[in-house]
Amino acid sequence: MRLFGLMALGLLAACASAEAPVAVADQAAVRSLGEILEQSPAADWHTVDQNNLLYMQLPQGRVIIELAADYTPLHTANIQALARAHYWDGAAIVRSQENYVVQWGRDEGDPRPTGAGTPTLAAEFDRPRGGVQITRLPDPDSYAREVGFANGFPVASNGRETWMAHCHGMVGAGRGDTADSGSGAELYVVIGHAPRHLDRNIATVGRVLQGMELLSTMPRGTGALGFYETPAERTTITSVRLGSELPASERVNLEALRTDSATFRDVIDSRRFRRESWFLDPVGHINLCNVPLPVRVRS
Amino acid sequence: MRLFGLMALGLLAACASAEAPVAVADQAAVRSLGEILEQSPAADWHTVDQNNLLYMQLPQGRVIIELAADYTPLHTANIQALARAHYWDGAAIVRSQENYVVQWGRDEGDPRPTGAGTPTLAAEFDRPRGGVQITRLPDPDSYAREVGFANGFPVASNGRETWMAHCHGMVGAGRGDTADSGSGAELYVVIGHAPRHLDRNIATVGRVLQGMELLSTMPRGTGALGFYETPAERTTITSVRLGSELPASERVNLEALRTDSATFRDVIDSRRFRRESWFLDPVGHINLCNVPLPVRVRS
Repeated sequence: MRLFGLMALGLLAACASAEAPVAVADQAAVRSLGEILEQSPAADWHTVDQNNLLYMQLPQGRVIIELAADYTPLHTANIQALARAHYWDGAAIVRSQENYVVQWGRDEGDPRPTGAGTPTLAAEFDRPRGGVQITRLPDPDSYAREVGFANGFPVASNGRETWMAHCHGMVGAGRGDTADSGSGAELYVVIGHAPRHLDRNIATVGRVLQGMELLSTMPRGTGALGFYETPAERTTITSVRLGSELPASERVNLEALRTDSATFRDVIDSRRFRRESWFLDPVGHINLCNVPLPVRVRS
Repeated sequence: MRLFGLMALGLLAACASAEAPVAVADQAAVRSLGEILEQSPAADWHTVDQNNLLYMQLPQGRVIIELAADYTPLHTANIQALARAHYWDGAAIVRSQENYVVQWGRDEGDPRPTGAGTPTLAAEFDRPRGGVQITRLPDPDSYAREVGFANGFPVASNGRETWMAHCHGMVGAGRGDTADSGSGAELYVVIGHAPRHLDRNIATVGRVLQGMELLSTMPRGTGALGFYETPAERTTITSVRLGSELPASERVNLEALRTDSATFRDVIDSRRFRRESWFLDPVGHINLCNVPLPVRVRS
């Protein structure tokens, strides 16, 4: 009595593989997400700068993170400096909290050369709204007056400032009690429902483009707030490198769909209005963090 | 240079353990989530009916699910009948899709006595709003005119009907293409950002009270939509039992905070306004699926 109906519900997190089948009668009118992406012009994609890509090698596989240089330029520069100093080689995943974050870094008693990196940075929790082009969503948001996408990232705004939103897969920089106490040396990734109360309280610095499933399935820590209680529970990070420092043969040429493109507007429309035959209610709404941000490997 | 600041961000998913520390000067005024729960009167909690609890034993540990008898009575009764028939003993986790769902059931070619259970059921995607007491949230929602909590579950409404919302940890019943093609024999749990587009398209039947971390960390399937490609990748379910069928010594006496209680209103307030010293922006908003639904083991 296995029901395959739920197969029709697939939401593609960050890839361009085929969407669920639609009823034959509808196919002429309804383009699947996969068809929208396949039929997109090349100009609607942009090649991600290898200098903004962190390749984090874990025993289980590789995670690739894109840094958001225009929203958090100071953190991006510091993280790049720390990566060039091989700061995270031998660091560890120290925390895995259910429906919240997975976090990595170094213990205080484990100093490591930081190269040109600095231990604290000015806060980059938001930036002026003026001059930032945002592809807006029409539906209300629980936390912000305006939400949408800027240069490939989910963002929110109050009309004066804009900031990146803590959606699933977004990466942020841990900090202490003061606004300037973060540096990007300790990073976390959102693995659950978007903890949007962190928006504007901490610097989000990028998002995971590949390998999210390696981080999200880390066994949960049993200590307070999901910290691992013993060193044996941690996962040691083999290395973190900038794509620009890797030999060309080890780089992944990633293309992200431009969030100011016509194709991306079609993606939003196809996820707001669910025209596939499985959907009995076509919905007609979407939350910021439910919009897929397609990424593909350039062949 | 390890920063512990992020330790202060803990969101308790479904338990009453201690919240992050607050600054000493604030402690008189600011109650942590843990303190709010510790100081709550016994009458603000209710004992969960063992007849509505599914105990799912996996090799990794035990998951406990509460069925929502008042929102989905037909599905609840059918799931209870299937559990009494030991329908899921030897069934398997068949799907694990990143930022979406983990799903379990039986293959079509693997029939199993269903006891008094039936293979299809009338749709239970919503119910009339009239007569349902909802503890409302004041912030806007991307999908519904009204959101809040009814009898321990996150719910939404358009003013005429109300339905349970697909928040993280909610359990639903897979279905085929028609509204009545689900039965509860194939179930899924939300492991990522709330896929609210499933609301009113499928029956949500309950939520996970314990053991969520066992489901959310299942290795992701590499087939389409996260289905496992080989039997070896699946996790076999040892057994699923109703609490009322277990010997008293094997039951867990769970208490859930009443969502119509004064304590729960204090919980909502403490999560909407973040008064802990770490928060530089006190937020003042909350999304339906970011509100913790506290559960404790009765000692």
